Amino acid sequence: MTAYTATVTVRLKHGVLDPEAETTKGALERLGFEVEALRSADRFEVDLDAVDADAARERADEMAKRLLANPTIHDYDVDVVER
Amino acid sequence: MTAYTATVTVRLKHGVLDPEAETTKGALERLGFEVEALRSADRFEVDLDAVDADAARERADEMAKRLLANPTIHDYDVDVVER
Repeated sequence: MTAYTATVTVRLKHGVLDPEAETTKGALERLGFEVEALRSADRFEVDLDAVDADAARERADEMAKRLLANPTIHDYDVDVVER
Repeated sequence: MTAYTATVTVRLKHGVLDPEAETTKGALERLGFEVEALRSADRFEVDLDAVDADAARERADEMAKRLLANPTIHDYDVDVVER
């Protein structure tokens, strides 16, 4: 078994309202920053042991599908590195 | 001016309690996943115009310092790509 860190980034799908991002963009503009657009996302860094990188990626993908992301409103991607 | 996307990733500093991550780790374990550790982070993707990548990075860094991160409890990093 090798130790991996899988990073799962969970984003709202295009077209889903993102009030947190709108609020943050407004606050930055009130501070004087010019911002074209702002998107927020959640990032989970999961340390896990697996036989190889493919197995680690598959497991992280399953975690995203079952818990970390809501397929109705979220897209996600998984990135795996050895730790 | 060139169009850039600056990605600001905001993490809790090492040693700061992360109840969201603990809850998520516990939920994954109840679903049968083996997880060594789990860290959560916020990710902001900011679209902005700047004269060059260094200027874009500097502006995103300033945004992180002034609003996106709390220096008492957070570390952050900034990544800039042309869009």
